[in-house]
Amino acid sequence: MTGTPKTVDAIRSKVKEGEVGLQGRGKRKSTLRSSGAVCSPVSTSSIAANSIRARKSSLGHFKNLVDEIESGVEKPFTKIIDLSVGDAHKVGLKPITFLRQVLALCAYPELLKSGDFPEDVKARVQKILKACGKGIGSYTDPWGLKEVREDVARYIAERDGYPSDYRDIGLTSGAAGAAREVMALLMTGKDTVKRTGLMIPVPQFPMYSATTSEFGGYTIPYYLEEGTNWSLDIMELERAIAEAKPHCIPRAIVVINPGNPTSSVLTKDEIKEIIKFAHRHRLFLMADEVYQHNVWADGAEFVSFKKTLMEMGPPYTQMQLASFMSASKGFMGECGLRAGYFEIINIPPDVKAEITKSLFVKQCAPITGQAVMDCIVNPPKPGDASYDQFIQEKAFVISDLKKKSKVVSDFLNSVEGITCPEISGSMYAFARIHLSEKALQAAEEAGLIPDDFYCISLLEQTGIFTVPGYCFRQKPGTFHFRMTILPQMEDLVYALEKLKEFQTKFMAKYK
Amino acid sequence: MTGTPKTVDAIRSKVKEGEVGLQGRGKRKSTLRSSGAVCSPVSTSSIAANSIRARKSSLGHFKNLVDEIESGVEKPFTKIIDLSVGDAHKVGLKPITFLRQVLALCAYPELLKSGDFPEDVKARVQKILKACGKGIGSYTDPWGLKEVREDVARYIAERDGYPSDYRDIGLTSGAAGAAREVMALLMTGKDTVKRTGLMIPVPQFPMYSATTSEFGGYTIPYYLEEGTNWSLDIMELERAIAEAKPHCIPRAIVVINPGNPTSSVLTKDEIKEIIKFAHRHRLFLMADEVYQHNVWADGAEFVSFKKTLMEMGPPYTQMQLASFMSASKGFMGECGLRAGYFEIINIPPDVKAEITKSLFVKQCAPITGQAVMDCIVNPPKPGDASYDQFIQEKAFVISDLKKKSKVVSDFLNSVEGITCPEISGSMYAFARIHLSEKALQAAEEAGLIPDDFYCISLLEQTGIFTVPGYCFRQKPGTFHFRMTILPQMEDLVYALEKLKEFQTKFMAKYK
Repeated sequence: MTGTPKTVDAIRSKVKEGEVGLQGRGKRKSTLRSSGAVCSPVSTSSIAANSIRARKSSLGHFKNLVDEIESGVEKPFTKIIDLSVGDAHKVGLKPITFLRQVLALCAYPELLKSGDFPEDVKARVQKILKACGKGIGSYTDPWGLKEVREDVARYIAERDGYPSDYRDIGLTSGAAGAAREVMALLMTGKDTVKRTGLMIPVPQFPMYSATTSEFGGYTIPYYLEEGTNWSLDIMELERAIAEAKPHCIPRAIVVINPGNPTSSVLTKDEIKEIIKFAHRHRLFLMADEVYQHNVWADGAEFVSFKKTLMEMGPPYTQMQLASFMSASKGFMGECGLRAGYFEIINIPPDVKAEITKSLFVKQCAPITGQAVMDCIVNPPKPGDASYDQFIQEKAFVISDLKKKSKVVSDFLNSVEGITCPEISGSMYAFARIHLSEKALQAAEEAGLIPDDFYCISLLEQTGIFTVPGYCFRQKPGTFHFRMTILPQMEDLVYALEKLKEFQTKFMAKYK
Repeated sequence: MTGTPKTVDAIRSKVKEGEVGLQGRGKRKSTLRSSGAVCSPVSTSSIAANSIRARKSSLGHFKNLVDEIESGVEKPFTKIIDLSVGDAHKVGLKPITFLRQVLALCAYPELLKSGDFPEDVKARVQKILKACGKGIGSYTDPWGLKEVREDVARYIAERDGYPSDYRDIGLTSGAAGAAREVMALLMTGKDTVKRTGLMIPVPQFPMYSATTSEFGGYTIPYYLEEGTNWSLDIMELERAIAEAKPHCIPRAIVVINPGNPTSSVLTKDEIKEIIKFAHRHRLFLMADEVYQHNVWADGAEFVSFKKTLMEMGPPYTQMQLASFMSASKGFMGECGLRAGYFEIINIPPDVKAEITKSLFVKQCAPITGQAVMDCIVNPPKPGDASYDQFIQEKAFVISDLKKKSKVVSDFLNSVEGITCPEISGSMYAFARIHLSEKALQAAEEAGLIPDDFYCISLLEQTGIFTVPGYCFRQKPGTFHFRMTILPQMEDLVYALEKLKEFQTKFMAKYK
């Protein structure tokens, strides 16, 4: 299916030969593959491997193309458009000025003397530097700067209308860092008879299955319903957990809202049903809410799991929940700065002590990221010198993405052989490609998964770079690609036209 | 021995009661404790817990003291001096101007237009921004920016006189991040009969034992010889590995050079012996070389493991080695920016592919840290506009620390009941306290480990904040404290005088 087994065998053989050092990991990987295979035809670790390998293989193709074009090799196209990764800056989004000015002055406080920066920028910098003690060169508390965590708590309280305690908030290196902390705590020890089961949506953001296998956990996939805009069906959750129980101890459920790679936005009623399900099965709730600023569909709105749980009242208000946020998405898209936070509620003090120890070993999240997170949760207020520019910049990004979400789904649905539910939120279209028998045969002959075959052909013939659906898992027999809606409108439209051309030729060729 | 068992029991009981969610971790912790206990009276995980708890408990004391003083509570002292953590900026070290200017302009490129910054700063920023593609808001390659890794490779090649390949270098979030990557790969799967054994020096930097237990590995402690300036004795390595073999598969050895908490600097001959030992036992070499810029003793010099291995020629040149570097130490002390790198040599491509997958899940190291690392490995050159200031700032830090290293060891050895080997490198004194029977009794009555009792009394009576030796592990029956040599000379001398007063009273009280 992929090259991974070959790799694993290669490593395994080395282990057999008794070679030392890093080959140990190879053995572990292979073990996880086989044991993971109990739960689904594609094992947790091979999914992780697949998804990552696919990105790598397509990345490889991508890099080769760039090199070839630069060295003047003739191509059927002149421009490459990267629709593969949720990295807004990479495709031209300008950073938010307030945020970068604060970062610059934190790095070089000499600039506080300069007249070129607004007073609110300087005030924020002074607040952050005071919180640091001696500037951004010092370690912070393992949980992050108290003052930033207090701002995060205020942001959450305002958003939800329910109190938030800064002692429940940890600042991390991106949302991945936040999720890793919680997942590490959830995974049981090697000696327990059964592994910790983590319910993960399919399609999903591959970090979850990859991290689950890394920590020796057990992935319990539950399918989202493509036909109804990737909705979440409780009966499917019941099916998934029932099938998994012989193999693991289900301990948590991951929900990504708004969705990635799906762009669905859950309604409050759907969230209530998930919370009831988690309560029935005593599951820890992991709410990936990094796209909370990215909601596009009319009538759709972001509602946090915490708010819903609080509204539901006891016994739900006592449930354990972790929510994750990131600086990489939203209107700021600061992927490279690696900033994120988690909020955990109803966690006993002794378990919090364990979290502190785990965070302590890694010292602290980068202060640059902590400072950026502070600007995101506590942006300029009306009357502040930076307010107008901030609102303008933020509004532009949001309205621009809203426009693009409509353009992309409308266009994709106009192309024969491609269907795509409405893009309600996040930054992606997860489009289904309906492949003919001939196309499937061609893929098999090429030794590629059908949607990998499709995306690589698309890249090579048009310079349009997307990610095949299997990287995110998908229902057997269905094939997809994920594309971002992030590029500048002109590039986006160009990419969609190219895609349509390609699809027409592809359909004709494999009719 | 510490409060940790209580915590673990508390969590275990919850697990018995079948509570959900995060309590799972408690069970795991307790498991690791008991299994770890096979190898030494203090298990790997409880060591991790101890060290971290001690920092926390003393941190708690520290914070209380600060609060009390601020709220006007009378104390036998007016000033608190923190000697507990290798955080130079926290105790007054000024950041290197070039480095912070580069960081500021990377964050806010508008400043490239300003006349206030040297040309070489702007040139460096343009180079880094070009490498990023669209600025520091984008993800980089999981291994980090190619151009920065090339600069690291050049730095290593110049340092050692042997080639270095940028494809062997990964940029990480601090050296802890680098070590975690390699340790994660070394740890075998849950199904292997025996755990992966990691040889770790005693005393050690607690991150190693903590991470080993986190990844389910097995700590093989080897003792450094205090009597001969914490030298490393091959017979002790042989003893340690022989004793551990029934319990684990020894797969790697960690060497910290220059030492932390010991300040010893290994000679080339010592390193050769370690390499031969590792080769005899087919061990992966983990060289923690984060203090390579911190060498103080006359005649002592930093020699890298890689250089030594290359000089030794085959078969040693084929050995697998990882070396770690950090931006948090040296002359720059940029702890809060979380920057580090690893160099791995003789690693097969399939294992490198595994590393790429593992790095990929975490996206990439913060670009701010990557930029800082570039400035450290590729500082201004003669003729560059920033050169003179950079050299001046660097030279000041280095000569100042060299002075302090002598002041501290001379002073400590002049105090009755305290001995401290010469501080040859790094940033610490690891001083031995010779405690009377009465003092040991007093500690036992207080329910504290003797050196914890000593350090907490010292803190409460003088405001001098040090770390008890047991946090780093030490030979049974010996007691130490670690203090940094980082504070401003005036504060350092004040702290030493206070320490002497305290020690005199302490000795008299428990005579």
